[in-house]
Amino acid sequence: MNTSTSPRKLRYAMVGGGRDAFIGAVHRHAIALDGQAGFVAGALSSTPGKALASGRDLGLADGRNHGDWQALLADELTRPADERIDFVSIVTPNHVHFPVALAFAEAGFHVVCDKPLVHTCEQADALVRAVRREGTVFGVTYNYTGYPMVRQARAMVRSGELGEIRKVVVEYNQGWLATHLEGTGNKQADWRTDPARSGAAGAIGDIGSHAENLVATVTGLEIESICADLGCLVAGRALDDDGSLLLRFRGGARGVLIASQINTGLENDLRLRVSGTLGTLVWRQEQPSQLVHLPHDGPKRVLTRGSPWLHPSAQRASRIPAGHPEGFIEAFANVYGGVMADIRAHLDGSAADPLAADYPRVEDGARGVRFIERTVASAASEAKWTSWAS
Amino acid sequence: MNTSTSPRKLRYAMVGGGRDAFIGAVHRHAIALDGQAGFVAGALSSTPGKALASGRDLGLADGRNHGDWQALLADELTRPADERIDFVSIVTPNHVHFPVALAFAEAGFHVVCDKPLVHTCEQADALVRAVRREGTVFGVTYNYTGYPMVRQARAMVRSGELGEIRKVVVEYNQGWLATHLEGTGNKQADWRTDPARSGAAGAIGDIGSHAENLVATVTGLEIESICADLGCLVAGRALDDDGSLLLRFRGGARGVLIASQINTGLENDLRLRVSGTLGTLVWRQEQPSQLVHLPHDGPKRVLTRGSPWLHPSAQRASRIPAGHPEGFIEAFANVYGGVMADIRAHLDGSAADPLAADYPRVEDGARGVRFIERTVASAASEAKWTSWAS
Amino acid sequence: MNTSTSPRKLRYAMVGGGRDAFIGAVHRHAIALDGQAGFVAGALSSTPGKALASGRDLGLADGRNHGDWQALLADELTRPADERIDFVSIVTPNHVHFPVALAFAEAGFHVVCDKPLVHTCEQADALVRAVRREGTVFGVTYNYTGYPMVRQARAMVRSGELGEIRKVVVEYNQGWLATHLEGTGNKQADWRTDPARSGAAGAIGDIGSHAENLVATVTGLEIESICADLGCLVAGRALDDDGSLLLRFRGGARGVLIASQINTGLENDLRLRVSGTLGTLVWRQEQPSQLVHLPHDGPKRVLTRGSPWLHPSAQRASRIPAGHPEGFIEAFANVYGGVMADIRAHLDGSAADPLAADYPRVEDGARGVRFIERTVASAASEAKWTSWAS
Amino acid sequence: MNTSTSPRKLRYAMVGGGRDAFIGAVHRHAIALDGQAGFVAGALSSTPGKALASGRDLGLADGRNHGDWQALLADELTRPADERIDFVSIVTPNHVHFPVALAFAEAGFHVVCDKPLVHTCEQADALVRAVRREGTVFGVTYNYTGYPMVRQARAMVRSGELGEIRKVVVEYNQGWLATHLEGTGNKQADWRTDPARSGAAGAIGDIGSHAENLVATVTGLEIESICADLGCLVAGRALDDDGSLLLRFRGGARGVLIASQINTGLENDLRLRVSGTLGTLVWRQEQPSQLVHLPHDGPKRVLTRGSPWLHPSAQRASRIPAGHPEGFIEAFANVYGGVMADIRAHLDGSAADPLAADYPRVEDGARGVRFIERTVASAASEAKWTSWAS
Repeated sequence: MNTSTSPRKLRYAMVGGGRDAFIGAVHRHAIALDGQAGFVAGALSSTPGKALASGRDLGLADGRNHGDWQALLADELTRPADERIDFVSIVTPNHVHFPVALAFAEAGFHVVCDKPLVHTCEQADALVRAVRREGTVFGVTYNYTGYPMVRQARAMVRSGELGEIRKVVVEYNQGWLATHLEGTGNKQADWRTDPARSGAAGAIGDIGSHAENLVATVTGLEIESICADLGCLVAGRALDDDGSLLLRFRGGARGVLIASQINTGLENDLRLRVSGTLGTLVWRQEQPSQLVHLPHDGPKRVLTRGSPWLHPSAQRASRIPAGHPEGFIEAFANVYGGVMADIRAHLDGSAADPLAADYPRVEDGARGVRFIERTVASAASEAKWTSWAS
Repeated sequence: MNTSTSPRKLRYAMVGGGRDAFIGAVHRHAIALDGQAGFVAGALSSTPGKALASGRDLGLADGRNHGDWQALLADELTRPADERIDFVSIVTPNHVHFPVALAFAEAGFHVVCDKPLVHTCEQADALVRAVRREGTVFGVTYNYTGYPMVRQARAMVRSGELGEIRKVVVEYNQGWLATHLEGTGNKQADWRTDPARSGAAGAIGDIGSHAENLVATVTGLEIESICADLGCLVAGRALDDDGSLLLRFRGGARGVLIASQINTGLENDLRLRVSGTLGTLVWRQEQPSQLVHLPHDGPKRVLTRGSPWLHPSAQRASRIPAGHPEGFIEAFANVYGGVMADIRAHLDGSAADPLAADYPRVEDGARGVRFIERTVASAASEAKWTSWAS
Repeated sequence: MNTSTSPRKLRYAMVGGGRDAFIGAVHRHAIALDGQAGFVAGALSSTPGKALASGRDLGLADGRNHGDWQALLADELTRPADERIDFVSIVTPNHVHFPVALAFAEAGFHVVCDKPLVHTCEQADALVRAVRREGTVFGVTYNYTGYPMVRQARAMVRSGELGEIRKVVVEYNQGWLATHLEGTGNKQADWRTDPARSGAAGAIGDIGSHAENLVATVTGLEIESICADLGCLVAGRALDDDGSLLLRFRGGARGVLIASQINTGLENDLRLRVSGTLGTLVWRQEQPSQLVHLPHDGPKRVLTRGSPWLHPSAQRASRIPAGHPEGFIEAFANVYGGVMADIRAHLDGSAADPLAADYPRVEDGARGVRFIERTVASAASEAKWTSWAS
Repeated sequence: MNTSTSPRKLRYAMVGGGRDAFIGAVHRHAIALDGQAGFVAGALSSTPGKALASGRDLGLADGRNHGDWQALLADELTRPADERIDFVSIVTPNHVHFPVALAFAEAGFHVVCDKPLVHTCEQADALVRAVRREGTVFGVTYNYTGYPMVRQARAMVRSGELGEIRKVVVEYNQGWLATHLEGTGNKQADWRTDPARSGAAGAIGDIGSHAENLVATVTGLEIESICADLGCLVAGRALDDDGSLLLRFRGGARGVLIASQINTGLENDLRLRVSGTLGTLVWRQEQPSQLVHLPHDGPKRVLTRGSPWLHPSAQRASRIPAGHPEGFIEAFANVYGGVMADIRAHLDGSAADPLAADYPRVEDGARGVRFIERTVASAASEAKWTSWAS
C-alpha cells in the first residue's frame, strides 16, 4: 500500500460505538491504521449521557461531541467546508442504521454503514435511491472482502481460472451464543438476539450475511432460489441461532450456506469453497493469508499474501512482506481505504481508480437485506424452493 | 491389537474383485494385514473367463476357483467343515450384491458385503430377515467406522461428553468424476454412473452413504426428515454426481450432508463436525489419526491415535504407537477384525466381546439403503421435507 | 486493550524511515493503530534532500522536518514541554543506531530503537550506562515479543507449567536472500549484506537476534556457551546468510538456533519449541494466534489468542475477539504500547504497571549485541564451545 | 502396486520378535500386507522357553519353531529347497544383530536386518564383505524410505529440481523417554538405554540413525564432518537421550540433525527440510502423504501420494487412491517389497528392476553405523569438527 504521497487527512464522525460497544473500536483502529483520516466528531450512543462521556473518553472536542445523531448532523451542516466531516461511520445496532444513513445520505454526506444494512428491502431500496440521487459514496463494511486473498480468489474466479463454477460451500460458524448469554447482561448478545433491534434474523443476519456477501464478491453468482432451515436451538431465543441453506444460482451452480452461533468451541470459522470445472479454491478466515488452489490436473497450490505473483487487487491490499501475518483490522482498513479512495476522487472531481476504490457499496448492502428477507421467507415456507425474485 | 494368541486361521472366499476391479484388492490387503484369515476360494468376476484368470493370478487352487458365484456356493456346500470357508466377501458392483448375499446368507454362511448393501428397501428387508433367521454374521464394509478416532468420537458422543447434540455437518467430497470419465473406458466410472448397476443414486449411493453411516455411527441420531438437492452437473450423466441435504433428526438436532464427486482437486475429503451443548468434535478422513475436540469452556484439544487416554474401543483399533500413521487399510482391517471376532464367537458358541465384535451390521446396511431411497424421493419432491418413515 | 480512557496523545519523532525504507512505515502503522501518539517531527533519511522530501510526503510541518538528526535533536531541545516530542523512534540502518540513540538518551529523551541495537558490546554498554544514568525509557523493537501467544508462552514457562526446561529449538528461516539480490539495486539487501552498515553479522544479526530474544523472553534461560557454524552460501557475499548454532544454557538445558536467509520459498518462518520435563510448547510466527501445548501426560492443547483462560499478559495484548486474526502490526503496536505505558508513568511520576509496561529494554538489546558478537567469535573458532562470558 | 501376477509365495523366518517385543509384530504385519511371503520358521526370543511359546502363539509348526537362532539356522540348512526359507528377518535388540546376520549371510541366506545394523564399524565392514562375497540380498529396515513421498522427494532432489542443495535440517523428536522409564520395567526402554544391548548411542542410534538415512536417501549428500552435542538429560541414564548435530557435507552444503527422546508430548516427529538454490522440500512423517515443495519463484505446492504426476518410484510405492491415507505399515511393506523383488530376481537369475528392488542395503546400514560412531566421537571431542573419514 503506497503511503508515500501526502493528501490531506480526511475527517470523520462516528454514530454509535461508545462505551460497551464492540465494533466501534474496531472501526476506529481500522481507520487509524493508515493514518488517512482523523476522528473529529460523534454521537456515540443512543443514550445522550453515555454518548457524551464516550466522546470525552476518545478525546472529541466538546463542540463536536453530541448527545444524539440529529445534533451531530445539524452541527456538521453549519460548519465550513474545511472543518466539516468528509464522511460519517455508522456503527450502531442494526435498527438505527436506516434513519441515520438516510438522513446523512440525503444531506449529501458520504457514509460508511455497518451490515446488515437495514431491516427491510423497502428501506434498502430507499437508501439506494437516495445515494444514487446524491451521487455520494456509500460503503458497507463487509469487512472480509478486504482480505487480500479474498480479492485474489475473486480475481481468479472472475478471470475463468476455475472454469465454470459448479458448487459453492460457505460456512460461518461461531460458538459464542451456544448458551443463553442474552440472559446474563451481555450487551452484544442482548441486542443481537432481539428482533426489534437486530431485525428479522439472528445468525443469518449477523454472520450469514457475511457468508452471502463473500460468495457474491468472489464468484459474482446470483442466487436464483433458496431452501432454508433456520433454528432457535437455545431455548427461549426469539431469533435463529443456526441456519442451513441450499442454494441454486442462475446458470446452474449449486450451493450450501451454513451460519451458526451455537457451534461450541468455534471462534470465527468463516470458510469458503468454490469448485469449478477446472479447479477449486478454499479460503478460511482464521488463516486468511492462505488461499488454497486445487487444480483438476495438477498438485495443490497454496498462494500466500504478499507474493509477487498475485493479482494487483490482492497485492495492493497488503502492507507488509509475505510471512508477516496481517489480520482482521488490516482487512477492515482495506475496506475503509477503498471508501476513502472514492471520497478523494469525489473531492478531486476525478474518476476513481477501480483498483483503489474497491469496497462493498450500498447495492451490496441492499442485496444482503434481500438475502435475509428471502431466507426468512423460505424458512417459514413448506415449499422446497423460495425464489429470490418474488 | 492383541495378536499373541493363535486361534486357527479362518478361510474366506471372495465374489467379485478380479482383474480391473479396485476395491477387491483393498479387501484382500485388509484381511491379510493381521493374518487371521486365508483366501481359499472365489468367483472373481461376472465374466467366467475373467473370473478364472483372476483366481489364477491370485493363487487360488483350481478346484476352488470358479467361473460364477453359484458354482462357488454349490462347491462350498459339498466341502467338509475343515475345508469349507468361514465367510464370503462380496465386492461386486452394487447390483450383484443382493442375489449373492441372500443366497449365501440363506445357505448359512457368514457374509461380508460392500456398501451400499442393495438397491431397494425391499431387498434390504429380505436380507435382514434372512440373516436374523439364520443367526449368522453379516458385516457391511462401511470401512471408515474402523478408524480408531471415529470410535473415539463415538465413545465421547455416546458418553455425553459433548452434551446434547445440536448440529451435525458431514461432507464427503471428491473430484474424480468432475469430467465425463465414464465416456473414456474407465471401468469404475462406467458402472458407478450406470443406474442399472449402481442403483438409484450416484454420489449419494457411493459416498453419501458413507457420510450417513458415519453420522449414525458416531452420534446414534436418527434422521426424521430429509430435504435433498441432487444434481447431475456433468452433462450426459444419468445419476447424481453432487448432492446437498438438510437433515432434521429426532430430538431436534439439525444437520447438513454434502456428497460430491465433482469437487475438482479434492481427493477423499470425508469430514464430520458434531456440535453439542458442551463441545464440538471435528474429524477428517485425510488426517484420520487426529480428533479435534473443542470444549465450550476451555482450549481446543487434539486427541491422537495410540494415546493411553483414549477409550478402549479406540485403543484396540490400533496396531502401532502414536505418531506412526495408520491409514485406510488398517481401518478396513479393523472392520474385518470385528467380523472375524464375531465369527470366532459363533464357532466357539460363545458370546462375542462387544469391544471385539465391533463392525457395521446388516441393519446398518439396510438403514443406508433407506437413506438413499428417501434422499432420491426428496430430490424428486417439491415439498421441503420428506419424512424418513414413509 | 482498554482504550476507554483518554490521556493526552503523545508526540514522537522518527529518525530514518523515509522514502525507500521498509521498516519505518511498519513502525508508523504500529504507532497509529491505537491512536496513542502522533507523528510530529523527523529526520527521515541520512540524505538531507531525501529526508525533507520524505517528511513532506508524510505531512510533517516544515519547522519539524529536518535534514539530519542532529538538527532534529537541537530543535527539540529548544521547544517548550507542550510541543516537545515524548520519544524518538530510531529506524535507520544499524550503523546509525548508536550515535543517534546515545545522543537522544544523553539529552534525556525517551527512545525506541530498532534491533540489533548497536554494532559492538562496548557501544551497547555505553548506551545502557547512559539510559540508567538518565533514568529514561528505552525500548528495543524485538517486535515478536508483542504477540499475545508469545506472552502466554512466557507466562506458562515462567510459572513452571512445563517443569524444568531441557531443550529449546528456535528457527528463523527466510528465502529472500537466496540469490545475489544485493547486486540488483535492492536497497534492503544492499545494506543488510554490507558489514559497514549491518555490523559483524548478516542473517545472525538481522533475524538470529530475533530468535535469541524470543528464547530469552519466553524461557529466561541464559546462554552459557555457543557453537556456531556460519556460512556465506551465496557467492560473493561478505556476511553470513545462513547460521546454525548449538547452545548450552546455564542449568543444563540444551538448544539449537537456526537462522537462514537462503531457505528458498520460506517467508518469515520464525518458530520456537521449548520442552520441559512436564510438557512442550510450540509457536510459529506465521500462525501467531496459536500456541500448541503438549503435556507429557495428556492430549495436545491448542491455545488461541483472545481466550478467557489465557494469562493476563496475553489477554491485554489483544484487541479483538478470538478467531479474528491479529498479526504483525498488532504485535508491533503492543511493543510500542508497552513503551508508551512506561513513558506515561514517567510523565505522571508514578510506578509503571508491569503488565502494561511490557516491552524489550536496552538491556535486552545489549544482550542481543553480545549474542551476535559471541556467535561470530564462535564461528571463527576451531574450539567447539565459545563461552558467553569472555 | 501391481499384485495381478502370481509368483509363488516366499517363505521367511524371524529371529527375535516374540512375546513382549514391539517391532517384530510390525515386520510381520508389513510382510503380510501384500501376501507375498509366509511366515514359516523362527527363533523368536533369546530365552528358549519364551521363543518356543511365542512361536506357538504365532502358529509356527513345531519342527520349525526353535529355541535359539543357531538351531534355526542348522535346521534350515538341512531342508530341501522347496521348504527352505527364502530369507530371514532379524528383529532382535541391536547387540544380537551382528552374529545372526553374519551367520545367515555366510550360510548364503538372504537377510533383512533391523537398524542400527551393528555396534561397530568393524562389524559393519565384516558384514558388507560377507554379503558381497555371497552375492546375497541384504536389506536394512530404514522403513521411512518406504514412504511414497520420501521417494518423490528423492526423485526431485536427484533430478535437480531443487538446484544445488545448500541446507538440510532433519529432526526426529519423541517424548517417550522423558522420564526414567527404564526403571519401571518397560522392556523397550530397558534395552534401548543399556549400552551393552543398544550400542554406543541411545537416541542417536535409535532414531538419529533414521534421520541420517533419510538425508542420505533423499539428497545423496555425503557428510564431511560432524559437530555433535549429546546429552543424557534424564538423570541416571547411561546413553544419550538428546542430540544436536551440525553437519557439513562434501560440496559445501550445511546441515542440522536433531534427535531427541525427551521432547515431552511429541510422538514420532521425524521431519526433513531440504533447501536448494531453486526451491525447498518439506516432509513430515506424521503427515506422510504430503510433500511440500516451495519453489523460489512461485507458489507453494503440496504434492500428495497417489497423484498421477508423481515420479514412478513414488507411484509404485502406493496401493490405494489419493486421499485414502497409507501409513507406517504400508511404508514398511514397501521396503520388504523391494527386498522381495530383489530376492525373486535372484531366484529367477534375472537382473532386478531398480524401480522394484528399491530398499536400503547393507552399505546403507554400514554408513549408519559409521554415522553413530563418528557422532559419539564428536560428542567426546573438544574440537568443533570431527571428520567423517578418520
